[in-house]
Amino acid sequence: MRSSARIAAARPLIHHITNSVVANDVANITLAFGALPVMAEAPEEVAEITAVAQALVLNLGMLSAAKIEAMLLAGRVAAARGIPIVLDPVGAGATAFRTASALRLLAELPITALRGNRGEIGALLGMGVMRGVEAVGTEEPHAIATDAAARFGVVVAVTGVIDVVVGSGQQYEVRNGDPLLPRVTGTGCMASAAVGILLTAGDDAAVQTAIALGLYGIAAERAATPADGRERPGPGTFRARLLDEVAALSACGVAGIRVTKKEEAQ
Amino acid sequence: MRSSARIAAARPLIHHITNSVVANDVANITLAFGALPVMAEAPEEVAEITAVAQALVLNLGMLSAAKIEAMLLAGRVAAARGIPIVLDPVGAGATAFRTASALRLLAELPITALRGNRGEIGALLGMGVMRGVEAVGTEEPHAIATDAAARFGVVVAVTGVIDVVVGSGQQYEVRNGDPLLPRVTGTGCMASAAVGILLTAGDDAAVQTAIALGLYGIAAERAATPADGRERPGPGTFRARLLDEVAALSACGVAGIRVTKKEEAQ
Amino acid sequence: MRSSARIAAARPLIHHITNSVVANDVANITLAFGALPVMAEAPEEVAEITAVAQALVLNLGMLSAAKIEAMLLAGRVAAARGIPIVLDPVGAGATAFRTASALRLLAELPITALRGNRGEIGALLGMGVMRGVEAVGTEEPHAIATDAAARFGVVVAVTGVIDVVVGSGQQYEVRNGDPLLPRVTGTGCMASAAVGILLTAGDDAAVQTAIALGLYGIAAERAATPADGRERPGPGTFRARLLDEVAALSACGVAGIRVTKKEEAQ
Repeated sequence: MRSSARIAAARPLIHHITNSVVANDVANITLAFGALPVMAEAPEEVAEITAVAQALVLNLGMLSAAKIEAMLLAGRVAAARGIPIVLDPVGAGATAFRTASALRLLAELPITALRGNRGEIGALLGMGVMRGVEAVGTEEPHAIATDAAARFGVVVAVTGVIDVVVGSGQQYEVRNGDPLLPRVTGTGCMASAAVGILLTAGDDAAVQTAIALGLYGIAAERAATPADGRERPGPGTFRARLLDEVAALSACGVAGIRVTKKEEAQ
Repeated sequence: MRSSARIAAARPLIHHITNSVVANDVANITLAFGALPVMAEAPEEVAEITAVAQALVLNLGMLSAAKIEAMLLAGRVAAARGIPIVLDPVGAGATAFRTASALRLLAELPITALRGNRGEIGALLGMGVMRGVEAVGTEEPHAIATDAAARFGVVVAVTGVIDVVVGSGQQYEVRNGDPLLPRVTGTGCMASAAVGILLTAGDDAAVQTAIALGLYGIAAERAATPADGRERPGPGTFRARLLDEVAALSACGVAGIRVTKKEEAQ
Repeated sequence: MRSSARIAAARPLIHHITNSVVANDVANITLAFGALPVMAEAPEEVAEITAVAQALVLNLGMLSAAKIEAMLLAGRVAAARGIPIVLDPVGAGATAFRTASALRLLAELPITALRGNRGEIGALLGMGVMRGVEAVGTEEPHAIATDAAARFGVVVAVTGVIDVVVGSGQQYEVRNGDPLLPRVTGTGCMASAAVGILLTAGDDAAVQTAIALGLYGIAAERAATPADGRERPGPGTFRARLLDEVAALSACGVAGIRVTKKEEAQ
């Protein structure tokens, strides 16, 4: 695994501006991938942290006005340094504040990759139905991803049963993962963290985003199906095992990754 | 299980205003019960979230003045819409700020159910001894619950070795649970989340509160005693397994629930 | 284990001012050691909580100006009451704000014990290299601990592969622990919590600090090597098992603790 080896060698520093519901999981998955997490958002120091980071991951969960200011400060430093920025628009569509804030970050910062469920990404396009931070409805992920990539000029990953990644005129499908993922809070946020980490290990942002989701999805599959024949885990055990399996990726390999390139988007 | 089936079918959205110590556990137990959690407290969006929620759960851990304002904003929307409100007065009695804030919320909002340990509920009655957020002392839970229900006109659940629920002139005892529960932080907060969820699945608030505590207690019993004869888990493993067992309730049934109705209160 | 028994009997209340990444783990490890955690930092109540606590643990992760004010308020109460104060300078050296804040707390409060990795403690001495909140570089921990103890007049614990504790003219080495510890976020913060708890159980702060790190390290060793021959756990399972093994210390004993006293420091 070229990407995994590069991450293990480089130990990239990933600056997360995230929320208290998922901060622990996001930090731990970053370590499990072999990268180093750092969380900071105070105006006194946020720019200084981004200035030494290799990627910036912005997560809109538990959003506040102060957090948006921190994201803009950090994002400007990331832009000046040319490091990748991931935006996870948690709850876009659930409130006007979340939707408007996500659109503002997309307008003011050179976001590299945008990852959300189809409700969230759809909401940024003026469609979609959200209930809280969960997507409901039947929008088609390929159309949403293609439209959002064109509209915002970024790589877009719409995750769900099938993950669709669109960027640079290419489209990828990722068919890894497990139904337990949406039964655990923060699994979407961890997917966005994975994207931020993998973006430090290769130049093609759409490819790295698809690989990130594939690796994360394989780890989820392994976490959900213990090799020794014991029963399928519940969500609490799965959550712990997901970190185990991400950490084991470099030793266990990536057999079973299902990332496919589709016809040209648009 | 009528209540569990109703929750699984309706996927009620539960708006939690809680604290960073327990936010992840509270979100995960909400998902495990089949409901959808949402956390939001910024003044820009808190009311908009409550406006689409089916229940509101207010938790006073890590309290701040800003959080009280968010709770009042959300609570007024909940009141206008007639959705249930649960108050968990974490640390009432430990500081004047917590006690006064809990009493203010009880005075200004139509709280449906109040759940705490006997130290916390006792403190709201002007008695009880707290050390930090843990109850000490020997106050009798039945008397505390009965007095608090009369004083505040809400359903009151005093949880401990035996949980006592008083409301609408009825009293229930719940004899489920495990001694590991007080060895894990946030297990009281998760119990309050369970109450909020179950209140969306039936009209009798005292009955639903008792059922919530019974279901949660059965899950705790199962999490503490693995069926395959391995040793009793420690608190870290128990915490993960508790989520597993809550998620398994609809499949495994509720044999062993020990909720009993007592003579009329007062 | 005299210290463990004392903690179990006294159930000391430990006031943590910490951060949302690790708050849950810090609370749970405090319970696992048999002590009671309380988290509070609002100006309305922070002093009132310290006024009934047996130790105060200050953690600079996710630092903010408001949090520093809370730490000073709490620290003055702790100083007036003579209870131990632990400082964990998370990320010192990573930003000027963290370094300056740690030095300010050391200057204004009678800190009992300072615990960090060699990058963090080195940064407080004007040396060391940090990447985010992780130490890199080759500074020698004995020299860093000795210099910091002399400079700040506190017990200093520099943790890593070997933990070095210097204070009261004595030096201790602790050779417990496991390579999984740095693969899990918050394990340093939990070590600082352990120090705060053990400081309530004995008068010699350097000895108690070394014992705390030894106990925590034994628990980590046991968590990493299941007795039944199953494979070594990954970081997610290890995190849960670490709490289990801390909770089991009083029953399982402390065989394997490797705390050694070295020649006089300086």
